[in-house]
Amino acid sequence: MAADPSRVISNLRELAALTSDENGAQRVAFTPTWQKARDWFAGKLSGLPVGRHRDAAGNVWLTLPGESPRSLVLGSHLDSVPNGGWLDGALGVLTALEVLRSIAEDCNGRPPFTLRLVDWADEEGARFGRSLFGSSAFAGKDSIAADRLRSDRDGITLEAALDENGIEIDRIGDASAEQENIAAYLELHIEQGPVLERLGLPLATVLGTKGVERHAITFRGQEAHSGSTPMQDRRDALAAAARLALEIYTIAGRHKDAVCTMGSVKTFPGIVTAVVGRCECTLDQRDLSPDVLAQMYREAIEASERFASQQGCTVEWSRIWSIEPIPFHPKLIALCRESIEEIAPGCPSLPSGPLHDAAEVARAGIPTVMMFTQSLGGISHNKVEDSSEEHLGLAVAAFDRLARKTLTWLGQE
Amino acid sequence: MAADPSRVISNLRELAALTSDENGAQRVAFTPTWQKARDWFAGKLSGLPVGRHRDAAGNVWLTLPGESPRSLVLGSHLDSVPNGGWLDGALGVLTALEVLRSIAEDCNGRPPFTLRLVDWADEEGARFGRSLFGSSAFAGKDSIAADRLRSDRDGITLEAALDENGIEIDRIGDASAEQENIAAYLELHIEQGPVLERLGLPLATVLGTKGVERHAITFRGQEAHSGSTPMQDRRDALAAAARLALEIYTIAGRHKDAVCTMGSVKTFPGIVTAVVGRCECTLDQRDLSPDVLAQMYREAIEASERFASQQGCTVEWSRIWSIEPIPFHPKLIALCRESIEEIAPGCPSLPSGPLHDAAEVARAGIPTVMMFTQSLGGISHNKVEDSSEEHLGLAVAAFDRLARKTLTWLGQE
Repeated sequence: MAADPSRVISNLRELAALTSDENGAQRVAFTPTWQKARDWFAGKLSGLPVGRHRDAAGNVWLTLPGESPRSLVLGSHLDSVPNGGWLDGALGVLTALEVLRSIAEDCNGRPPFTLRLVDWADEEGARFGRSLFGSSAFAGKDSIAADRLRSDRDGITLEAALDENGIEIDRIGDASAEQENIAAYLELHIEQGPVLERLGLPLATVLGTKGVERHAITFRGQEAHSGSTPMQDRRDALAAAARLALEIYTIAGRHKDAVCTMGSVKTFPGIVTAVVGRCECTLDQRDLSPDVLAQMYREAIEASERFASQQGCTVEWSRIWSIEPIPFHPKLIALCRESIEEIAPGCPSLPSGPLHDAAEVARAGIPTVMMFTQSLGGISHNKVEDSSEEHLGLAVAAFDRLARKTLTWLGQE
Repeated sequence: MAADPSRVISNLRELAALTSDENGAQRVAFTPTWQKARDWFAGKLSGLPVGRHRDAAGNVWLTLPGESPRSLVLGSHLDSVPNGGWLDGALGVLTALEVLRSIAEDCNGRPPFTLRLVDWADEEGARFGRSLFGSSAFAGKDSIAADRLRSDRDGITLEAALDENGIEIDRIGDASAEQENIAAYLELHIEQGPVLERLGLPLATVLGTKGVERHAITFRGQEAHSGSTPMQDRRDALAAAARLALEIYTIAGRHKDAVCTMGSVKTFPGIVTAVVGRCECTLDQRDLSPDVLAQMYREAIEASERFASQQGCTVEWSRIWSIEPIPFHPKLIALCRESIEEIAPGCPSLPSGPLHDAAEVARAGIPTVMMFTQSLGGISHNKVEDSSEEHLGLAVAAFDRLARKTLTWLGQE
């Protein structure tokens, strides 16, 4: 019997009621509310023939042993940002649970391949600024040295918070042992953007996660008196930054799905009576194509130098963070599209702008794909985050088909 | 015998040595260092046939009685910003002292008209954010109600600081009694801008102080995820503000001496991974013509509404402060130009972008003019503020002539 969307939705509402306040979901990783969510989830497993264990990085795994140890993993995360929504992460975990239950029933508890569910630890990185914590430890990409320095706004270190949650920081890399026998990974997530709503479609196949170039840019001109400095004598660092804030629309606009964002601008001295002498801004550029990403990065540097020169300023770039584009698996992309077309004809293929745990799994060399379902208003990380129940139902049905098609594919390989 | 520039310069250096630290001048009004400067100044009066008193707002007046009670006032201020320069304010006071001494000598202590010197209290407003404190009390333009609410960064109220300096906040308006018999007011100041240096000239006649329109502008769009929000779906409040930051160059550029400055930009949420949902910025617009000022203000509002609409945002304006342009007296402008031409041929006429105590005196209906001397690099409010000794010498000589020509004019009126 196919997965039951109504059970997924009622579980999501129950979890939201248990772990939200008037400002939204509060399942921040490594806090008591998160632990409460995980305990509640463990209570939902009764009657299911699954084993449950936590790995060295705090990821929780359910395992339904199959005829073969080769396994299909369905996953997502129960943690949320502070004041988050009811779907981000939780939709993927609770849909995975329902699909696992449904397949277990259909196979009398013994599928042809092992079926696993993973609830990744701290996808959001909301407390310590380190997103994809559990999945990157799993992928072996974790940098313990950098993580050791992290602390939350109360000065509590990540190391101490992990310790409190029974996780040893020096051993989180051991989570990579979980990679053994994994043949495929599937993740359902809300889009967190407006594209599907604009297209009037419920579901999409995700082609991969965009690469990111993230930089701090500082323009330096000359602080000067706003009353006594003629316009032509100014070396206005804000004017140079303003040109770049607009130029990034041209730079991104040359490519179909590319995005460039100036999210922060700080002016110094930043007073009403002084021409801006120094302007610090950030630039976040994303695309699924490494070539496009490299081109946009190069064009932004060139433009910033041209604008700095035009305004009598200098400019300096400093990389904050970057990650390469991570394409998903062609066969799984095809199966995902097929599953969606059978449920809701018209399946767009989108890159994911936000990163997801699936990106880390794919980096570990495991065939991976994600499915997106429409977000109302494109809003997430907010208590108003929502999707229609109709679309959530279609998502559960399509993801169920995808899991079954993937098991079939594993048998054909 | 004409005023002696070398005495002015050595006095300025003595004052700087007494009231500066490694970061510059520290003569912030209503502080012990300011009081030390005023005590030092009082000590420089020995042998001069002048009376000295402090008015109800803390302005210090020297009076050399003449044949007529009608009086010519020379003035400026000894207070500085924190980490200020050696010339701003002090040049005017010490030149006035030297000119007063020189005229007293030449008249055997009895000039045809009364000659006065004023050291205004708290021109800079550095501690309580209320510039032109003493001169606006003198002009009767002071708002005690607003001043009562002011406090410094340590929470000390202006009222308490005044009290400590022997000034009753409820009586500062009594300083307007000093207006009696004043026939003209002259003030020498450094330019604090780059125009004279660019022209290669030492001195200028000041036509008046520019009017100011100062506003806070808030653009509101929609905060959105930097990875999942396509460029065409963004309502980017920063993009709207950036267009305005550039458009103000066009708006000011239509007029000869007009200036427009966006000095502060704040982005919200202001994080690298979010499209800016709200952008708060400031705009400071100045010109000597009320019509030009009104036109620039209107054009900036229109432009901001156009840009907001183009970016899917809204915009709100809120006035921070404004003052009308204050033109100086035509006859005194002519005498100032004549004095400069005799000393250093080639005399430009400039509006003053910064406000000065002279603006408040002119607002009180007293014939007023200012003279500017070149600032190196256009820099002031900074320890590197400087002017060449040659130019300071020319300034003292020209200002001496201006005072004498003004006395002659008073006799002809």
